[in-house]
Amino acid sequence: MSQKDVLRPGHVAIRVLDMDEAVKHYTDYLGLIKTDHDDQGRVYLKAWDEYDWFSVVLREADAPGMDYMGFKVRDTEALYRLEQGVREFGCTVERIGSGELNHCGERVRFDSPTGHHFELYAQKDFYGNETGTTNPEAFVEDVKGMAAHRFDHCLLYGTDLDRSVELFRDVLGFGLAEQVLDGDFLIGAFLSCSNKAHDIAFIRHDEPGKFHHASFFLETWEDVLRAADLISKYDLSIDIGPTRHGITRGKTIYFFDPSGNRNEVFAGGSTWYPDHPTITWTTDNLGKAIFYHDRELNQNFLEVVT
Amino acid sequence: MSQKDVLRPGHVAIRVLDMDEAVKHYTDYLGLIKTDHDDQGRVYLKAWDEYDWFSVVLREADAPGMDYMGFKVRDTEALYRLEQGVREFGCTVERIGSGELNHCGERVRFDSPTGHHFELYAQKDFYGNETGTTNPEAFVEDVKGMAAHRFDHCLLYGTDLDRSVELFRDVLGFGLAEQVLDGDFLIGAFLSCSNKAHDIAFIRHDEPGKFHHASFFLETWEDVLRAADLISKYDLSIDIGPTRHGITRGKTIYFFDPSGNRNEVFAGGSTWYPDHPTITWTTDNLGKAIFYHDRELNQNFLEVVT
Amino acid sequence: MSQKDVLRPGHVAIRVLDMDEAVKHYTDYLGLIKTDHDDQGRVYLKAWDEYDWFSVVLREADAPGMDYMGFKVRDTEALYRLEQGVREFGCTVERIGSGELNHCGERVRFDSPTGHHFELYAQKDFYGNETGTTNPEAFVEDVKGMAAHRFDHCLLYGTDLDRSVELFRDVLGFGLAEQVLDGDFLIGAFLSCSNKAHDIAFIRHDEPGKFHHASFFLETWEDVLRAADLISKYDLSIDIGPTRHGITRGKTIYFFDPSGNRNEVFAGGSTWYPDHPTITWTTDNLGKAIFYHDRELNQNFLEVVT
Amino acid sequence: MSQKDVLRPGHVAIRVLDMDEAVKHYTDYLGLIKTDHDDQGRVYLKAWDEYDWFSVVLREADAPGMDYMGFKVRDTEALYRLEQGVREFGCTVERIGSGELNHCGERVRFDSPTGHHFELYAQKDFYGNETGTTNPEAFVEDVKGMAAHRFDHCLLYGTDLDRSVELFRDVLGFGLAEQVLDGDFLIGAFLSCSNKAHDIAFIRHDEPGKFHHASFFLETWEDVLRAADLISKYDLSIDIGPTRHGITRGKTIYFFDPSGNRNEVFAGGSTWYPDHPTITWTTDNLGKAIFYHDRELNQNFLEVVT
Repeated sequence: MSQKDVLRPGHVAIRVLDMDEAVKHYTDYLGLIKTDHDDQGRVYLKAWDEYDWFSVVLREADAPGMDYMGFKVRDTEALYRLEQGVREFGCTVERIGSGELNHCGERVRFDSPTGHHFELYAQKDFYGNETGTTNPEAFVEDVKGMAAHRFDHCLLYGTDLDRSVELFRDVLGFGLAEQVLDGDFLIGAFLSCSNKAHDIAFIRHDEPGKFHHASFFLETWEDVLRAADLISKYDLSIDIGPTRHGITRGKTIYFFDPSGNRNEVFAGGSTWYPDHPTITWTTDNLGKAIFYHDRELNQNFLEVVT
Repeated sequence: MSQKDVLRPGHVAIRVLDMDEAVKHYTDYLGLIKTDHDDQGRVYLKAWDEYDWFSVVLREADAPGMDYMGFKVRDTEALYRLEQGVREFGCTVERIGSGELNHCGERVRFDSPTGHHFELYAQKDFYGNETGTTNPEAFVEDVKGMAAHRFDHCLLYGTDLDRSVELFRDVLGFGLAEQVLDGDFLIGAFLSCSNKAHDIAFIRHDEPGKFHHASFFLETWEDVLRAADLISKYDLSIDIGPTRHGITRGKTIYFFDPSGNRNEVFAGGSTWYPDHPTITWTTDNLGKAIFYHDRELNQNFLEVVT
Repeated sequence: MSQKDVLRPGHVAIRVLDMDEAVKHYTDYLGLIKTDHDDQGRVYLKAWDEYDWFSVVLREADAPGMDYMGFKVRDTEALYRLEQGVREFGCTVERIGSGELNHCGERVRFDSPTGHHFELYAQKDFYGNETGTTNPEAFVEDVKGMAAHRFDHCLLYGTDLDRSVELFRDVLGFGLAEQVLDGDFLIGAFLSCSNKAHDIAFIRHDEPGKFHHASFFLETWEDVLRAADLISKYDLSIDIGPTRHGITRGKTIYFFDPSGNRNEVFAGGSTWYPDHPTITWTTDNLGKAIFYHDRELNQNFLEVVT
Repeated sequence: MSQKDVLRPGHVAIRVLDMDEAVKHYTDYLGLIKTDHDDQGRVYLKAWDEYDWFSVVLREADAPGMDYMGFKVRDTEALYRLEQGVREFGCTVERIGSGELNHCGERVRFDSPTGHHFELYAQKDFYGNETGTTNPEAFVEDVKGMAAHRFDHCLLYGTDLDRSVELFRDVLGFGLAEQVLDGDFLIGAFLSCSNKAHDIAFIRHDEPGKFHHASFFLETWEDVLRAADLISKYDLSIDIGPTRHGITRGKTIYFFDPSGNRNEVFAGGSTWYPDHPTITWTTDNLGKAIFYHDRELNQNFLEVVT
């Protein structure tokens, strides 16, 4: 039998302006668990239902944004096969040695036509989730704040959308679950390497390499309400929500970390299989595609990226 | 890149004692849509969020139970590769010509060491889901009864559990997401070919080839309540629920079709990836594993199979 | 023992520009049931869980808005006792004979210092709810659209807020559950004649007699999501939501009928008893008081009234 | 205007076998807050959304059960008026001086024809709820366990049901919201002094003065699931649930405190008004009346009382 090469989004490295504030945000409010820090001052975090050692890396810097997003692949063989693929596709490719990120094996870094940095890696140390692997409880009780289950996906804004979709479909084996078209012109692409509605999404944008948001999974619409309530109680900067997306059907709320990086927590979302047709949204339905209830885009959502 | 061969559970063929009653049950109460019938008298049904022409086939017979369960594979090449695998494994294999089931391409049928019949197929006609592929609504309004989203998995009771797990893991590429162990002795196996907690599950049993239940996906715990309410209003035979499973964390209710075949509708459930550790339940926790709240098994659940 | 005189908001009479469109809105989308019409062309509606013959009366007119809101009182004795009270308070009082509204007994109409018309009545014909009074089902299956359970309250904008609060507290026996204060100056008052967080609410406004919204009860936050989804599917004019109020804690969504009258559907909300302290919101928290998540008021909500 | 005399169930005094275990149960699992203890060793507790100083009093004793249930009345005048009523009705009446229970004013105690002890009182010290009265948050974050909102009602088993219903209706001003009839013979009575579906309920029983359960309010079906999950995690003794009642429509789960006293937490439930018809359940529907989904009574529920 054959198996899939790319397993899932494994980590996102986010630049923050003030590390203490950022750690407080991602732990106390989003509910991630701090699992390590390194001598560069980077902080490692994971969500309660993830097994690997980290899924978010925070780095203090002068400007917010995303350094890179990493995907875990099934094994070293797949890692090198995909490395060759992205190189042949024309990406600039770089190997980063095991241990440059604590607990993480060798990484293959490449740039995308949208101007972002991505990584592939086959190994990360096992930390374990909060329920364990023998007779686990079916829920967690003591996770903080929104208690995000896992890092789920990123939405990135960038320039050469068509070629990036080609890269993710043809080289990395993702499927195009949903797309936004202006006539024949591709505006947005929602790509899956799993049964999720998206593992990575791109929106066409004038500037390359921009970061729209990192998204974290919740289980229910009640959880989205609780996230909204917490946003208010702790006076976090809200973007929009609670609402639903037309694209993916996800139930969602957006807010900002103290550095201005957008976060999403969401629940639900349709199931995707590789033989499913691509769902197409036309620009006259763009408002409804993005914010299903308001049916109009807010300028914030379109323009504020880091 | 490499891709997964087995996509998902694609259909289950169920024997019913009275076709009219069965069709009423699966359409009015479970909320499936009748999409066809054939000259053998078989009736074809699908759930509202499935694209393929059918996922349930009903056949009138003298005894209830499952005729076979079919998995969709990615393409013909995978079909034949897997056919060779199951033959080499020692299964009895049979090809069934395209069209024997309406709208379905060639099928490869084989028997499992638990005494069940399984099928693989690469092609089924596209019917489309109820929301469509261009600017779809994010929900459906007019689906009947429990409005099950999709056929999700089966739980089967049978004899040679160890060899069947070997077959599904080594030949078909499934992962063992969760298992029940009595010491070293395998009692139950929950296997995934996706990111779901299970696509097929087996419990060890004295008799081969028994059918415990076919399960259908709902989105929320509120949907499980509504299913429970409908079961009561229409006086369907309930087995147990609403409750939660320890295994998979799913929120669930069990009931019987008019022929005595068990159905499940459920929501939630943990996410599985091929690099996740297998979760182990020990027999002293078996009650909690199956029914997380009652923490004891009812005899019905253990013994009533078709 | 003593009993309460005013039972509940019993009806609201709303002016609409086009009766056919309005009836479609209030039945197909809000989910009310049309129970009658009269020779003046007025249409009578009720929600599925109400027993009395109607709770909404629609009247075609040149301008939208509220004609009057009626409260059911416990008996004729209470009706006349309260009539005397409102007359002594200084209201203009008028008796309207039994049958002027179909199925409704004699009404005592009076004006409030905010410039609105209110009514009291002791008798309305029994229609029955949709589940019945003998061995009822615990839910309804075939109610349309948002399936509002009952007419719940109105929010009215008007001039002399202090005197109106005096009228409702001292004469009609309501309690002041929550208030908005600008220093000592009363901006908003939420009054209850039950265990609900409000049965009538007022906001101070330059113009007398304005109608902000009529509100209808749903059971859950899931129901609010479904309402939001329906608003989008049927392209109804949304105001804001889904969100939560700080005031009353209610989970809510606002939208407009085709004539521009605002509707609310909501779930939850705190419980009120006559010995509870009045909750006070200060104007620096007004945004959070009204829209708990966004923490800022939209101009629409403040200014668009009918 | 006239006002209601009896406001609500204000406290229940429960006998427990081991105070430490009991306090752990009612605080850590049910989520009540310990607010005091007295020199008799009694412990006082309240729920997070209650304002008065306590709603549960625990007393260590040799046998579990209920000592008495108290109702708060509107004022002293009502207290003495009702005292005279219950005396004239034929109850044995006793005044208990202010301060016999900490923070509680004078109480009027009387026995009911079902063999239970009830109390009326007009004053209890104000403790405040967990959100406060100025610009309160709309939710609480740090309440433990099931985080019950309030003590809601009791179900009591006893002998002379008809006379007790007479007492609560005619003397105390309750309404009979729902009843269970065996022909003309009253089996169960659900009585309301508010807009809730019940504030006190009785089931006919051979023995007088038995305690079936004390019930506490949750907001949602999700909260009931969480309660069920906690019951399992902490290995509390479950009775039945999660499920729904036909009577009142409430969504519910039952479990036992360490002394064997039954607790309920529930959400939802229909709204009651004094002009609503009494809903009647006939004994052939008794299973569905009590447990809407299973449609059959378990012996536990019928026979295990304290």
